[in-house]
Amino acid sequence: MVKKVTTDEPSIDELATFCKRKGLIYQTCEIYGGLAGFYDYGSLGTLLKRNFEDLWREYFLGLDDNFSEISASEIMHEKTFEASGHLKNFTDFVALCEKGHSDRADLLLGKKIGKRCEGMTKEELAQGIEEHGVKCSTCGLPIVSVDVLNMMFPLSLGMNSRAFLRPETAQSPYVNFLRQFDLARKKLPMGIALIGKAYRNEISPRNFVLRQRAFTQAELQIFFNSSKINTHDKIKDVQTYELNVVLSSQRSKGIQKIKCKDMLKSLPAFYVYYLAQVQKFYFDFLKLDKEKFRFYELNDKERAFYNKYHFDIEFDLGKLGWTELGGVHYRTNHDLQGHEKVSGQSMLVQDDSVGEKTLPHVLELSFGVDRHLYLMISEAYNKDKERDNIIMKFSAKISPYQVAIFPLIAEGKSYLLARDIFESLRKRFSVSFDVSGSIGRRYARQDENGTPYCITIDEDSVKNKAVTIRERDSTKQIRVKVGDLKEAVEELVEGKSFEKVGKVVNTRVK
Amino acid sequence: MVKKVTTDEPSIDELATFCKRKGLIYQTCEIYGGLAGFYDYGSLGTLLKRNFEDLWREYFLGLDDNFSEISASEIMHEKTFEASGHLKNFTDFVALCEKGHSDRADLLLGKKIGKRCEGMTKEELAQGIEEHGVKCSTCGLPIVSVDVLNMMFPLSLGMNSRAFLRPETAQSPYVNFLRQFDLARKKLPMGIALIGKAYRNEISPRNFVLRQRAFTQAELQIFFNSSKINTHDKIKDVQTYELNVVLSSQRSKGIQKIKCKDMLKSLPAFYVYYLAQVQKFYFDFLKLDKEKFRFYELNDKERAFYNKYHFDIEFDLGKLGWTELGGVHYRTNHDLQGHEKVSGQSMLVQDDSVGEKTLPHVLELSFGVDRHLYLMISEAYNKDKERDNIIMKFSAKISPYQVAIFPLIAEGKSYLLARDIFESLRKRFSVSFDVSGSIGRRYARQDENGTPYCITIDEDSVKNKAVTIRERDSTKQIRVKVGDLKEAVEELVEGKSFEKVGKVVNTRVK
Repeated sequence: MVKKVTTDEPSIDELATFCKRKGLIYQTCEIYGGLAGFYDYGSLGTLLKRNFEDLWREYFLGLDDNFSEISASEIMHEKTFEASGHLKNFTDFVALCEKGHSDRADLLLGKKIGKRCEGMTKEELAQGIEEHGVKCSTCGLPIVSVDVLNMMFPLSLGMNSRAFLRPETAQSPYVNFLRQFDLARKKLPMGIALIGKAYRNEISPRNFVLRQRAFTQAELQIFFNSSKINTHDKIKDVQTYELNVVLSSQRSKGIQKIKCKDMLKSLPAFYVYYLAQVQKFYFDFLKLDKEKFRFYELNDKERAFYNKYHFDIEFDLGKLGWTELGGVHYRTNHDLQGHEKVSGQSMLVQDDSVGEKTLPHVLELSFGVDRHLYLMISEAYNKDKERDNIIMKFSAKISPYQVAIFPLIAEGKSYLLARDIFESLRKRFSVSFDVSGSIGRRYARQDENGTPYCITIDEDSVKNKAVTIRERDSTKQIRVKVGDLKEAVEELVEGKSFEKVGKVVNTRVK
Repeated sequence: MVKKVTTDEPSIDELATFCKRKGLIYQTCEIYGGLAGFYDYGSLGTLLKRNFEDLWREYFLGLDDNFSEISASEIMHEKTFEASGHLKNFTDFVALCEKGHSDRADLLLGKKIGKRCEGMTKEELAQGIEEHGVKCSTCGLPIVSVDVLNMMFPLSLGMNSRAFLRPETAQSPYVNFLRQFDLARKKLPMGIALIGKAYRNEISPRNFVLRQRAFTQAELQIFFNSSKINTHDKIKDVQTYELNVVLSSQRSKGIQKIKCKDMLKSLPAFYVYYLAQVQKFYFDFLKLDKEKFRFYELNDKERAFYNKYHFDIEFDLGKLGWTELGGVHYRTNHDLQGHEKVSGQSMLVQDDSVGEKTLPHVLELSFGVDRHLYLMISEAYNKDKERDNIIMKFSAKISPYQVAIFPLIAEGKSYLLARDIFESLRKRFSVSFDVSGSIGRRYARQDENGTPYCITIDEDSVKNKAVTIRERDSTKQIRVKVGDLKEAVEELVEGKSFEKVGKVVNTRVK
């Protein structure tokens, strides 16, 4: 499938510059030249991030009453990573030059010879680098060695004991599994969600927030009885639902739209059901462009050895092309078995539905939060020639502010009315109160913030108890009674069309 | 003031055991014997924590339109801590025994000689330990040395550069100040709030969540022009408001109730205004017991050298006594000046209200989130003899669940009605759906969870479109029409009295 790129699509650099200017996302410790691979979220970005996380929770915790969320320490016991295999296997190869600069060996060699070198051994990389005379990306001097680097960040607790910053959030639900099972309904399937940070000592962090050293994951670990993998209570609901997939055995065919019932020929029902639910999150809940989404199946060589099935969640990010934003991973009982072995604690639980004990298997739904925010920002970004401005077309639910309140005059009765409206609306919505500059200037500012609805309170508002709501995308305006305002905003945020909420007025409030 | 302790008050161990049993809070990596100083929040605890954080945001960000929240990397540039002084000064003294076990030297000596040894020098501690023959707390062998330990956690990024986990959240707003000032209204005072983790390599983490190695802080850094410290726009609003304070010069008098206008004799208006707002957060917003709260002023020797005024926020935690949960710190321009010096970037900003450039001073409102959750749990904990159960009397706003839905029968029309009610209410409230066991058993479970309102849907509900709401504290029941339910729950959560929302019925739903 040939990727169509319109010249209007923003580059990653253009978006990063915009994000910095608006205080959405920018590098950590800028005043010290920044810290490579770490980012801060400013006021707008913090609101956007929280809205995304809340929507994610609402949707995924709503899939099953037996799904709940925990929050767990990012610093974990060393044994955790002995069990998970990270201590031994979570490594990258580093190419070091004469001056001690470091590069990721596979990427450095890959760039030189123009093909992917992930998966090559240390010896193959060292040989390739020597053969092709690969040089340091920083100073251009020769590479003198290829070393192994574990990508976890170790820490010393107290004077002597060692712990690690978790390299994936998944291990927290796994070590919490037994306690949570006891606390919940003591039945399978059971889901543990976690939204939190993971840390990886990337040698070459790059691509803005797409490859960081600290990143936020939103994950749902679903523990289930593997003897029931070929069923799901609600599989019938999705039989005819079509998935956008690229199968590993049929990549030349590109994206295929395949009904769930046909996917069942090669994949278990429990897995297919959640593929459908994940896709619906994007299509029905976030209402994103269906043509920019695909599940990309990894083959035996590409996926981790413990993942029996692995479909990446990919989006077409304009000039960046198809980009992994998450994945649906059937991790089998690899992790619980590892923790059972290293901790000496049995992870068998009673499954009353079949009357036997079982070591649960895990289906992992994994979402990179920062990458999703990049997607949201990239999709919302619109250069409007007529308005000579960037209009961020966020949906109302995810927009940093849902509403902005503009008192036309910064004093008197109409100002006090505007304050009352602000205080009343901010209990339910994310609201900005803006008094500075002309109304036109304030509209432009909120267009850049992505605020879908701006409410202006003028002198007439005091007399006739009505205010003007202006819609970001159409710039149309309606007049709404103050007493109906809360309900009107609620209807707008829920998606009711603008014209149905109030009568469109032509007069522009200056 | 003599502390009255009733025998009924739970000890910290009793609360920790309860928290573990209910999955509120328990040690990280339990299956590996736990990780000292680190805790996880289970399902209930995660809901409670989020509710507290949301309430904190609602209140403190509501104090001024120019206050907003950021979220920033926990890993920060080394220079940050050169500027803040943590690299040099953020140290503890460690007493090491022959076997290499470590103790905090001041606490170890203090315990032996029965007086506080914080603030003693390394030499004084070493001498005291030798004189009094102090032994290791782990193995009882003699102490052989007293060493200095920096309490920050260092990290190696890539192959060579060094960074640190932040030991306080405050430094993130400080290094973000210039960018946020540009992004916001470019006027002072400006507030940057941050809720996030800080990390300290405590030698002796102890007292459950009260002294951890990783803890969540909710902080508001208010940047202002120091030439205006003796004024605040709204100081008149709090003139006659009484503060509960223990003054450092009059400690023998215990808690005094002093009007803000009298506090102004020795403290600047800007500081006094925020003392009042902090106290109102506990009294008016969280509605906690006023007799258990005090501001405790630190004297010259006790407070950090850069804090010109420092009042701890303290609560009477029953058997634990008065405990620091936060503080109100006037940090002067110490931090911005440090960052200016080390980064070489001017932090002067234009203050249009006085027409001059100024290096802002900082007032810090600091709150330990985990400690506040301990307070919430401790205050809610009630042993009810009649019901033979723990009743967690959380206020409706902070309770993990506001509502629980009980279908009397797990099938048929009434079950479907219960599902509809659940789906409708969970869009607005935190709702538990519980089908297992008798209604009595379910009430008991929700009483322990702290759920203030339980809604039972029975066979009659389908016919007469009404359900029963039961109040946790009184166990009274009212009957409410399904159509009025959303509004009824909203009124209850907002604090309307139970009897005013519906007619009390006597018949118990079995």
